[in-house]
Amino acid sequence: MPNNAQAIAELKAHLGDRLSTAPSILHLHGENETYYDNTPPDAVAFPNTTAEVSEIVKICHKHGCPVIPWGVGTSLEGHALPIRGGVTIDMINMNKVIEVAPEDLYAIVEPGITREELNTELRATGLFFPVDPGANATIGGMTATSASGTTTVRYGKMKDNVMALEVVLADGRIIRTGSKAKKSSAGYDLTRLFVGSEGTLGIITQITLKLHGQPEAISAAVCEFPDTASAVNSVIMAVQMGLPVARMEYVDPMSIKALNAYSNLSMTETHHLFMEFHGSDSGVAETADRMKDIAEDFGGGGFQYATKAEDRTKLWHARHNAYFAMKAQKPGTDGISTDVCVPISKLAQAMDDTIADVEAHGWQAPIVGHVGDGNYHVLFLFDRTNAADLALAKDLTARMNMRALELGGTVTGEHGIGIGKMKYLEAEHGEAVNVMADIKRAFDPTGIMNPGKIVNVN
Amino acid sequence: MPNNAQAIAELKAHLGDRLSTAPSILHLHGENETYYDNTPPDAVAFPNTTAEVSEIVKICHKHGCPVIPWGVGTSLEGHALPIRGGVTIDMINMNKVIEVAPEDLYAIVEPGITREELNTELRATGLFFPVDPGANATIGGMTATSASGTTTVRYGKMKDNVMALEVVLADGRIIRTGSKAKKSSAGYDLTRLFVGSEGTLGIITQITLKLHGQPEAISAAVCEFPDTASAVNSVIMAVQMGLPVARMEYVDPMSIKALNAYSNLSMTETHHLFMEFHGSDSGVAETADRMKDIAEDFGGGGFQYATKAEDRTKLWHARHNAYFAMKAQKPGTDGISTDVCVPISKLAQAMDDTIADVEAHGWQAPIVGHVGDGNYHVLFLFDRTNAADLALAKDLTARMNMRALELGGTVTGEHGIGIGKMKYLEAEHGEAVNVMADIKRAFDPTGIMNPGKIVNVN
Repeated sequence: MPNNAQAIAELKAHLGDRLSTAPSILHLHGENETYYDNTPPDAVAFPNTTAEVSEIVKICHKHGCPVIPWGVGTSLEGHALPIRGGVTIDMINMNKVIEVAPEDLYAIVEPGITREELNTELRATGLFFPVDPGANATIGGMTATSASGTTTVRYGKMKDNVMALEVVLADGRIIRTGSKAKKSSAGYDLTRLFVGSEGTLGIITQITLKLHGQPEAISAAVCEFPDTASAVNSVIMAVQMGLPVARMEYVDPMSIKALNAYSNLSMTETHHLFMEFHGSDSGVAETADRMKDIAEDFGGGGFQYATKAEDRTKLWHARHNAYFAMKAQKPGTDGISTDVCVPISKLAQAMDDTIADVEAHGWQAPIVGHVGDGNYHVLFLFDRTNAADLALAKDLTARMNMRALELGGTVTGEHGIGIGKMKYLEAEHGEAVNVMADIKRAFDPTGIMNPGKIVNVN
Repeated sequence: MPNNAQAIAELKAHLGDRLSTAPSILHLHGENETYYDNTPPDAVAFPNTTAEVSEIVKICHKHGCPVIPWGVGTSLEGHALPIRGGVTIDMINMNKVIEVAPEDLYAIVEPGITREELNTELRATGLFFPVDPGANATIGGMTATSASGTTTVRYGKMKDNVMALEVVLADGRIIRTGSKAKKSSAGYDLTRLFVGSEGTLGIITQITLKLHGQPEAISAAVCEFPDTASAVNSVIMAVQMGLPVARMEYVDPMSIKALNAYSNLSMTETHHLFMEFHGSDSGVAETADRMKDIAEDFGGGGFQYATKAEDRTKLWHARHNAYFAMKAQKPGTDGISTDVCVPISKLAQAMDDTIADVEAHGWQAPIVGHVGDGNYHVLFLFDRTNAADLALAKDLTARMNMRALELGGTVTGEHGIGIGKMKYLEAEHGEAVNVMADIKRAFDPTGIMNPGKIVNVN
């Protein structure tokens, strides 16, 4: 039988002030960015070292007490909710850069550092860490949820950029996966098994990340399109031609309207692509020229090219503020963001059908997409205490997921499963979910690692 | 107790002529590209479909009979040797291209197709599959061993280019992993767990591969260097600057001498980089110019640039023939190729120390490297029936592996573990090998899947 109280008493003896049961702290770690009720843990631990994480897990393991890792709480499917109580392990104190290797293009970091903090630390090296999910998430959280984002079309996703991990297992053992070499065929790929495992297989305590050289030149562009398909088809052509575009973001008319209002812009309220090019001075100019030609072939127009840093910053600042801009359109509502990913040739259809479904129910929902990856997000804006609205949001999400599967895609491109997408995981993977459950049991026989997420094992 | 004879009798009833126990067939499937004695299976099955693979595995599962998948037998660490007997499953009949999706840049193939056959089939589409390990291996074998090769510095390794799999599990269940979408965060990454699992967790029956657009322009170059370090440092600089070089191969003086003799070339017998650039016409010219400047900064010279297809082909044909060219230098010997991978800043040291070790024992061993990845190969040429020579080759290999680990690298960048590197896997991963064994037990509780490879479970 789980004995969380006994585990917490032992932890308190080890950690002192760094084990909190203060209601405000518990409440904060029970929050989520979606529609679930606040679900506080029984206690929150603040370890300083891997050895302490191991000690915490050993004690919790002994007493059958759940452990839930916590970064900054930006996950979107209830990943970090302690739905069976237990101890949340907040990584805020484990936020150091342990090593930067400029020649080998890697950095070793602790999980609590955010991607913006990391890039600030890297600035003087001429290197950067490119994965950008929008939110200023922690690297640990981005690793655990298999995040990606706007630059993935060029630099890859977390799975491509995590080289090695240190992980505390369910019984407190500490293992190292991967190496500092760029590639390895040495045994089962534990690194990529832990990436996206959402704290259910182990607790990530150190991450070795690929770094990239800051490009010599960066330029940005926006282009208008008459419809979804013309924007998406332009991207398909660019991808087929291998154009080295670093970001290609679709922004729908409704989002443009919100951005205009929120960021004091004056873009035409139609379909847009926001693009960024990285390379040499001549390279980015050539890429932009080609992209302009492609866009115009597909009916695009109003191509604007920005080489000045402040113009670029303004554009991407607007894109990153899309969530807040849209929420500002409907004050007092909650915003629920969901994501799916489909083969790019099906993307326009998936987005158009989703919008048609939303509008058929009298709603509006802005849509943005990492088009180069076939990944898009819909933001539902409603009052989550209104049961009818919540039910409709869930129905629309369900159909969006099933539509993605019918088109050969996946129910999540980058947000992960958490608790919100568990039933869709079964729809997507069928028998393979039983194999995932076997893995869960092999790694966590007593079921203490963030239980009730990704797969049910009982 | 395993009852291989009973399994084979039942298989014979199902498969008829497509289950062979002919000595010549058994001998062929007992061969290997390294120093192990011929180790034939008890029978060889030639399935036509996934359903047949499932049926074969179910029968073998019932009788505890090992099953070993087989592509074309190019693996280098004894991966496909049936060391505990059983049934080899030869995928030669399962060699079809099932689907090519030009807009979505993927192809679905059966495991028995070779990479050259696939690229021949793709030729008219303007697309290609870039991973090139040298040997004309099957896609199934390349997936199972987590192969990479000369183009990995630009296009990635198998792990980056396999999107989805169909796999037959140890009890005959058929699962599908991944999707046709470019990315997914939907549950544990089973795809990348099977990539590199060498037939020990399941039998891969279908592979969805990323394709790439054939570049508009391709050019090649060679450059001479006074020593290992100057060649490697040029590559480090190119990688740091993000130069889009598609291949960057180090070839040592001894290999150059062999290539000159074998391919009737007249290169200076010193350290070389062989390079290839993919992009637009102006892009490849710019990249080559920059690469020339970098190489000269590090003491390189004699930079020769080839835009004509026949000159390029000659160059890469020579590189691909390096193995045979070197064997031709010592007629009558066996060639044993081994690989390790280190952080690129340690590569020159690793290669120089290895050569010094080899020469200190009165041997010579050519060395070639996928420098951009920090991966290099040494070819030991000796008579494998000579016990003293075999022992020395094993000792030199052992020190090469331990040296890679001391430098932060891995004991195999692309060849895999098989039986040859199992003890080094333990040296590299320690406690994590026990986790790999847990995975093996979870997937294959009766131990029939290519037993005795990667990890020992007893």
